[in-house]
Amino acid sequence: FFPEMAASLWKNLLQTTKERILQQRGASLYIDAHGYEEELIKKKLQQFAGGSINLSKEDSGIGILTLNNPKLMNAFTGTMMLELQERVTELENWKDGKGLIIHGAGNTFCSGSDLNAVKAISNSQANGLLESFCNFWKTKSMNFGYKTLLCRLPLISVALVQGKAVGGGAELTTACDFRLMTPGSEIRFVHKHMGLVPGWGGAARLVRIVGSGAALRLLSGAAGVDPARALHLGLSEEMLSSSDETEALEEARAWLSQYTEGPANVIRAVKKVVTAGGELPVEAALRTEKDVFGTVWGGPANLQALVRRQRHK
Amino acid sequence: FFPEMAASLWKNLLQTTKERILQQRGASLYIDAHGYEEELIKKKLQQFAGGSINLSKEDSGIGILTLNNPKLMNAFTGTMMLELQERVTELENWKDGKGLIIHGAGNTFCSGSDLNAVKAISNSQANGLLESFCNFWKTKSMNFGYKTLLCRLPLISVALVQGKAVGGGAELTTACDFRLMTPGSEIRFVHKHMGLVPGWGGAARLVRIVGSGAALRLLSGAAGVDPARALHLGLSEEMLSSSDETEALEEARAWLSQYTEGPANVIRAVKKVVTAGGELPVEAALRTEKDVFGTVWGGPANLQALVRRQRHK
Amino acid sequence: FFPEMAASLWKNLLQTTKERILQQRGASLYIDAHGYEEELIKKKLQQFAGGSINLSKEDSGIGILTLNNPKLMNAFTGTMMLELQERVTELENWKDGKGLIIHGAGNTFCSGSDLNAVKAISNSQANGLLESFCNFWKTKSMNFGYKTLLCRLPLISVALVQGKAVGGGAELTTACDFRLMTPGSEIRFVHKHMGLVPGWGGAARLVRIVGSGAALRLLSGAAGVDPARALHLGLSEEMLSSSDETEALEEARAWLSQYTEGPANVIRAVKKVVTAGGELPVEAALRTEKDVFGTVWGGPANLQALVRRQRHK
Repeated sequence: FFPEMAASLWKNLLQTTKERILQQRGASLYIDAHGYEEELIKKKLQQFAGGSINLSKEDSGIGILTLNNPKLMNAFTGTMMLELQERVTELENWKDGKGLIIHGAGNTFCSGSDLNAVKAISNSQANGLLESFCNFWKTKSMNFGYKTLLCRLPLISVALVQGKAVGGGAELTTACDFRLMTPGSEIRFVHKHMGLVPGWGGAARLVRIVGSGAALRLLSGAAGVDPARALHLGLSEEMLSSSDETEALEEARAWLSQYTEGPANVIRAVKKVVTAGGELPVEAALRTEKDVFGTVWGGPANLQALVRRQRHK
Repeated sequence: FFPEMAASLWKNLLQTTKERILQQRGASLYIDAHGYEEELIKKKLQQFAGGSINLSKEDSGIGILTLNNPKLMNAFTGTMMLELQERVTELENWKDGKGLIIHGAGNTFCSGSDLNAVKAISNSQANGLLESFCNFWKTKSMNFGYKTLLCRLPLISVALVQGKAVGGGAELTTACDFRLMTPGSEIRFVHKHMGLVPGWGGAARLVRIVGSGAALRLLSGAAGVDPARALHLGLSEEMLSSSDETEALEEARAWLSQYTEGPANVIRAVKKVVTAGGELPVEAALRTEKDVFGTVWGGPANLQALVRRQRHK
Repeated sequence: FFPEMAASLWKNLLQTTKERILQQRGASLYIDAHGYEEELIKKKLQQFAGGSINLSKEDSGIGILTLNNPKLMNAFTGTMMLELQERVTELENWKDGKGLIIHGAGNTFCSGSDLNAVKAISNSQANGLLESFCNFWKTKSMNFGYKTLLCRLPLISVALVQGKAVGGGAELTTACDFRLMTPGSEIRFVHKHMGLVPGWGGAARLVRIVGSGAALRLLSGAAGVDPARALHLGLSEEMLSSSDETEALEEARAWLSQYTEGPANVIRAVKKVVTAGGELPVEAALRTEKDVFGTVWGGPANLQALVRRQRHK
């Protein structure tokens, strides 16, 4: 799928770039190393092409994000990584958005990153690239604050797990608020067998979802988790009744609708106060809660509700 | 109950006050804006009168706090808010206190804030008042440190939920260490239907009690939680057997007594180390635990226990 | 076991030492008060001799730490405290280590600290000693960072609870990642009956394991927790089938092996990311996770896994 030459090509390009950066530094022309590096990474990722990330924004305020690379069990190629970033930005700016369902094409969830891309990046001589790559995601995902990271989107999010969510795919499910599993599906943190641990927050988020003990067992045991076990651990909210792709999506949509019914700004406010309560120290969480409360208090939905009550008297 | 004129009266008074403050500033007489504002808020709250908060301090070291406004399902009026503050201060200073039961009169818990007061405050022209009101509670509840906030009282606290705990009433139950529910009772975070989210820490505390996922479901779904569901979620500790007001209180008292039996300073120390463990970052929690330990180590109860052991040898 | 005179002896020695320190200060000879104090504490602890802490490091990468003072239900004497510190340091430096089982000799776990030592230290005139003693443990356990504290060892740790884990013994179980209990065994936070609360992090860790509510009930109720209740609370992972000392150890070893199978550096990395996820604020946890990921990414185990995959294509 990805030719072996990709790795060395990448390496060579990187070295060339480093030289160029040094030259620019000398000439005092090198001003925005960071933006430059980001562009560089983007170009590299584009070389590992294939698959797509599709987003459908429904009138109900629920977005459907489809990981689409079924030949490789929806593993992330370089271009899919870039597209995910774009879709997340699009979701961020979707003011009517209230919910999000992430699922995979071809009746399976996601098998993580495409191994050819991983292998190229893991080449020992290209260590600088890994660092750059991590920084790229950190920048896009965190330094911009409470904005871009998937799990900090002001949407109530569900990972609809059909088939397998493995490695990076299992990590991706932890970036959602909820996980719904179809019969026969499996979440598996297989990292240990790849000589790895999660690196982009998957471990920290897993601890928050199931607690330290269960997280340690899941990551150090690398065993598959079926829907019943996931339910017991609190890793999943519900076992859906159908494993048919269309029906399962319909079930997930109905489940999520219970929580997205209402004005967008109120639903988004709920997501924000809960995220703050789970992520911030107590005092900061209380401050955030008060601030978010201030955005809905006296707002249209609140005033209408007061009027409704008045009439019922 | 509260005449509609209350809102405009309030607004007018506030404007007058703002002018007065500006005049005082000009005359360099305005020294303690904060204390002044607090007095102002108190006066306003006193205009929304009705109901009461009663406290009975029993010899066993258990206090019984009764929300008493049964005509409005024990909704908080302005004077009840002020009385709650006074009772909390009284409990703080009760050195023999070990436990606290909060319950409602008329066989129901609490329906939140009186909507007339809420409506008046939510008047868009009185935004400054909301800010002041929030600050008032923040000051009384948090800036004084680990003192005034109900959930930080050095008492083991129980919300005895009979009938309904709705909206602010549901939030109030989260300020207690434990919730006991009578058959047929219900806790319901109805905020969404009022176009609101919790604003005084109810969301952050709910996350700490039931986890982020369940908190998000409870707040975004706004569905009622019955005793069985609450038990399953960890929102309640036990379903009591009686829904009779007197019997349920007796049951709650017996349940709490298991945990308050012993010297007051030891029980209070237990509450403190657990609160620190749940609220503070690890290092700070360990420091607090060591400090609290120092207050009981070598104390009378500890020395007597050592003597008892010595004799049994 | 420990003569009553120990207390006064200790007190006298301490006073003498204080005088010496003051003299040294005057003579500008007092340079390292801290190291000096540590030596002093060590000498005192050595006076409360008895029992031992044994460590066996098995080829599998699992260490077996035995609390050995069966005459006193494995209560910690002064020398055992010092030996524990030494064994923890030894474990820290064991690069092939992946797991740890802590158990007690004589088919019981641990009854906490030897009461004679406790009584001597608790003498009201020797308050400075308690402070010193606490500081000693703090220094050895925390100020050295993520190194010495048992629960921060980069090993997956199991407390094998046979018989009773009482008081400080119950606290010790919370310093392990997991607790396995044999039939008929009991964990009991008996501190309240001794007029005490945990002082070295036992409360904070218990909150992290079972939540604030359950921790408060366990510490303020001081009731024994049997294996079924512990399982329900999440205080224990499993009830072992045998209460025979040798068989139970074998069961614990087999249970732990599920999680330690694999290269040491990967297993240790898993432990580190989970610990960070549970202890650190979100942003710091994410940074740590990325850093730990960097230590295994492109490492031997990772590269071998990639090669294996390549061959399977």
